[in-house]
Amino acid sequence: MTKVVIIGGVAGGASAAARARRLSEEAEIIMFERSPFVSFANCGLPYHIGGDIKERSKLLLQTPESFLARFNVDVRVTSEVTSINRNAKTVTVKNLITGESYQESYDFLLLSPGAAPVTPPIPGLDNPLTHSLRNIPDMDRIIATLQSKNIQHATVVGGGFIGLEMMEAFHQLGIKTTLLEMADQVMTPVDREMAGFVHQEIRDKGIDLKLSTALSNVEYIADTHSLSLSLSNEEQLKTDILIMAIGVRPETKLAQEAGLQLGELGGIYTNDQMQTSDPAIYAVGDAIEEKDFLTGKQTLVPLAGPANRQGRMAADNMLGRNEHYQGTQGTAICKVFDLAVASTGKNEKQLKREGIEFEKVYVHTASHASYYPGAETVSFKMLFEPKSGKILGAQAVGKEGIDKRIDVMAVAQRAGMTVEQLQHLELTYAPPYGSAKDVINQAAFVASNIIKGDGSAIHFDQIENLSDDQVLLDVRNPSELESVGFIEGAINIPVDELRQRMSELPKDKEIVIYCQVGLRGNVAYRQLVNSGFKARNLLGGYRTYKFAQA
Amino acid sequence: MTKVVIIGGVAGGASAAARARRLSEEAEIIMFERSPFVSFANCGLPYHIGGDIKERSKLLLQTPESFLARFNVDVRVTSEVTSINRNAKTVTVKNLITGESYQESYDFLLLSPGAAPVTPPIPGLDNPLTHSLRNIPDMDRIIATLQSKNIQHATVVGGGFIGLEMMEAFHQLGIKTTLLEMADQVMTPVDREMAGFVHQEIRDKGIDLKLSTALSNVEYIADTHSLSLSLSNEEQLKTDILIMAIGVRPETKLAQEAGLQLGELGGIYTNDQMQTSDPAIYAVGDAIEEKDFLTGKQTLVPLAGPANRQGRMAADNMLGRNEHYQGTQGTAICKVFDLAVASTGKNEKQLKREGIEFEKVYVHTASHASYYPGAETVSFKMLFEPKSGKILGAQAVGKEGIDKRIDVMAVAQRAGMTVEQLQHLELTYAPPYGSAKDVINQAAFVASNIIKGDGSAIHFDQIENLSDDQVLLDVRNPSELESVGFIEGAINIPVDELRQRMSELPKDKEIVIYCQVGLRGNVAYRQLVNSGFKARNLLGGYRTYKFAQA
Repeated sequence: MTKVVIIGGVAGGASAAARARRLSEEAEIIMFERSPFVSFANCGLPYHIGGDIKERSKLLLQTPESFLARFNVDVRVTSEVTSINRNAKTVTVKNLITGESYQESYDFLLLSPGAAPVTPPIPGLDNPLTHSLRNIPDMDRIIATLQSKNIQHATVVGGGFIGLEMMEAFHQLGIKTTLLEMADQVMTPVDREMAGFVHQEIRDKGIDLKLSTALSNVEYIADTHSLSLSLSNEEQLKTDILIMAIGVRPETKLAQEAGLQLGELGGIYTNDQMQTSDPAIYAVGDAIEEKDFLTGKQTLVPLAGPANRQGRMAADNMLGRNEHYQGTQGTAICKVFDLAVASTGKNEKQLKREGIEFEKVYVHTASHASYYPGAETVSFKMLFEPKSGKILGAQAVGKEGIDKRIDVMAVAQRAGMTVEQLQHLELTYAPPYGSAKDVINQAAFVASNIIKGDGSAIHFDQIENLSDDQVLLDVRNPSELESVGFIEGAINIPVDELRQRMSELPKDKEIVIYCQVGLRGNVAYRQLVNSGFKARNLLGGYRTYKFAQA
Repeated sequence: MTKVVIIGGVAGGASAAARARRLSEEAEIIMFERSPFVSFANCGLPYHIGGDIKERSKLLLQTPESFLARFNVDVRVTSEVTSINRNAKTVTVKNLITGESYQESYDFLLLSPGAAPVTPPIPGLDNPLTHSLRNIPDMDRIIATLQSKNIQHATVVGGGFIGLEMMEAFHQLGIKTTLLEMADQVMTPVDREMAGFVHQEIRDKGIDLKLSTALSNVEYIADTHSLSLSLSNEEQLKTDILIMAIGVRPETKLAQEAGLQLGELGGIYTNDQMQTSDPAIYAVGDAIEEKDFLTGKQTLVPLAGPANRQGRMAADNMLGRNEHYQGTQGTAICKVFDLAVASTGKNEKQLKREGIEFEKVYVHTASHASYYPGAETVSFKMLFEPKSGKILGAQAVGKEGIDKRIDVMAVAQRAGMTVEQLQHLELTYAPPYGSAKDVINQAAFVASNIIKGDGSAIHFDQIENLSDDQVLLDVRNPSELESVGFIEGAINIPVDELRQRMSELPKDKEIVIYCQVGLRGNVAYRQLVNSGFKARNLLGGYRTYKFAQA
């Protein structure tokens, strides 16, 4: 009879426990959880604070009792494992209510301790109005603070998932909110220019967004029961509640003390069977380093999807199966007010850091047939290998159909598809759902044009540095230039007049064409090049150029 | 200078014209269109009739003038090509306004004539209240009929895309509607049991749905300016407007008269470069037979997506490129009131007809995290090769996220993925958009369990024929049996009590387990099998069983 001990009872741990039982009726399965709650919906916490999820009970997906009844798993909450004795194959467990400690033996041990919010060394953070958000007790404390005093202003530090979700929660509660982000963008899984759409949305909703701004000091003012924040830009900010959401760090103390190998990034090392450096100990979820899908290198991806599937796989392997983890792409999505922002694979920053050669395209096109009500612009970026066309990553922002487009790209990347193959994708089309040539087909057409030499691209960040041998040509209608703006120095010839007015352009210079989103620019580009001009087309058009500055 | 002549100015033809111009500034491009309109949104017609698309002008995406200005294409509307002289490489064109005919020469000819509504040989169809819907003039006539008299009741014949959309349009206009369908289901791209969800929705909205019922005679009653319909079930039906939407037939007259090869299914034969049996003549869209993605056989798929991409590809090849069509999966979606119903690849009926061995799974699970507001059930069916696990097809029905799941499956199938690989898909997850284990992951787990022998399935249509050696076990809670019903003869032991009550079950019989959707059934199945019982689990549970009868 195999005895499986699991440390941590949320995503990875709970998945492993359930799977282990399905594989074996005889196995003894014990799951230790430090908090009073197992299998809670940690991704739902901000939405309960903001009021979208009305009932707290909805977050509690399982209880120790329900786990016992359904899976015959011995769930012990408020039980902290304080050490692992690898030689004896035992763990020391402290009952956090009685304070007593005891030993529990294992055949296989699964570590699923998660990751803890990073607390930066900023003076004054230890005060009753500063919170982080990881679990139900954290959430309860934030709600208690919100109820205990009249909160006029909230400050969130960190523009990642939790930071953005908490910002929205406060806004929804009618609280004036400041979002501080040390980097020049929120939502780092996407590149800076794609984050611009999110910045615009955040500001449009009345949030005080401060990019490239750090928190340097916190002072608790007992009189007013509020906080005075000092910012890196010398500003002082008075606030009533402070949420620290600058990131998470793998919980590795237990593993480290037990002598398990850690990776270079600070997570618990695992092989592709979710096994640590000790063959009897497996590890999954936010605490581990796993294999990156694209590079094969170790990576840290604290997301629920991988954690769940890793938990299931660890159970398989502990109980004698032979399953291999296929690497993490880091597919992610975040709701930011009316927008969704999502990505999969590598972004441009990461590709540059890794020294991986890439090409990129941008398209902005309707989420479904533009003549059918409710169509919204999908802003889409795709990264691919310049020669093979292999997909490296994709990003999308918009109000509808964002999850769908990134899911398509996540599957295509995982399947090893090229942008050439994406042209042929046959996606669902009816006017309420898509277009006969979907966003993805269109992006693939643009990318394939580049690979085949049918298109020569210029990008938004190269526009400011045009040489004297280049001429900027705006092919939109004059009314568009007036209503949405234009790039200084451009000649304006609408695309539909270009054939007649080509003689106005010099043949000895390179014509740098742009339109609103890149589509008419391509029509103009092909006209000019087929007529003997040198030209390049601004991919994503004025829209990408403009929002990159937001 | 290449001269390209295009017959038909909608999806395929218009795509080809625009692409041809982008490839060559010198080519002479002439596009003939019989109707007064080019490049109109034919998929939008029912939505204008129903009022979703308010302005008729939104359906007119391009005009001859805009095509000329942007693409220098000579568009000639109300111009019917009446014959092709292949030896002389000319076409005879009749100007439908002046009645004059003339010759036009070509280097390459593209046929994109589309498909015409099938008119069955039913007596009495030729009357002023009977319509079909293919183009703007058809739409205008239907709207005129609706405005010319007080329409109390409408009848739609045919439960395909156009039939369903017209049914919804009438309902939206407050008109009592009958839908007649000769088959035992609407929306034939999905299988009968999946169509059950659609039948339920249609009936819930108050539509008079008559399945397995044909129209046998139509009588126009001049007195009341209405119709009396005779049905195959001996019923008589009085109606004020009749829409015939039983399907379409490729327009092949011109091709046939020119001696071009037709396929066995009655479409214009094309090779994988969109070339007909005459190398100078290409053909695309609803009129042609193209290669099926899965079987490689010729198929007829009258859908906009393939037509558009084929048009682009035909232009490539006419102008010297070397592009190959990769086959059509037949990915399709239809909005039916609050539901979407979609499919890709082959359905079960087709697989049986083709003699292709398959296995299938059903899952019903939330479109996004069930604790976040607005989650709806996605009912999902997946078909795959029993040994290799290669994806053969997928179908989905529900109120949210249907397009997304079928898109994911369409990409996965096109990439040649197996259900084993689908387990590892890393799709976007945040509570408003998905689940840590998405519908697709879950379906893949179920399918992989079957392939590995971890699960033994029984299907909804095998339940009525259980033998004396089988025992039916309902593992839901008693309250569910009361509220949603149960299968006659089942023993009820809730899954959470099963471990304690296993002795109530016989070890010498096969336990046929079911729950609501199949998930608890699997937990019970694993328990029983791991405890030495013989068992099978009803995939998709009571929900699939129940709706199969709807």
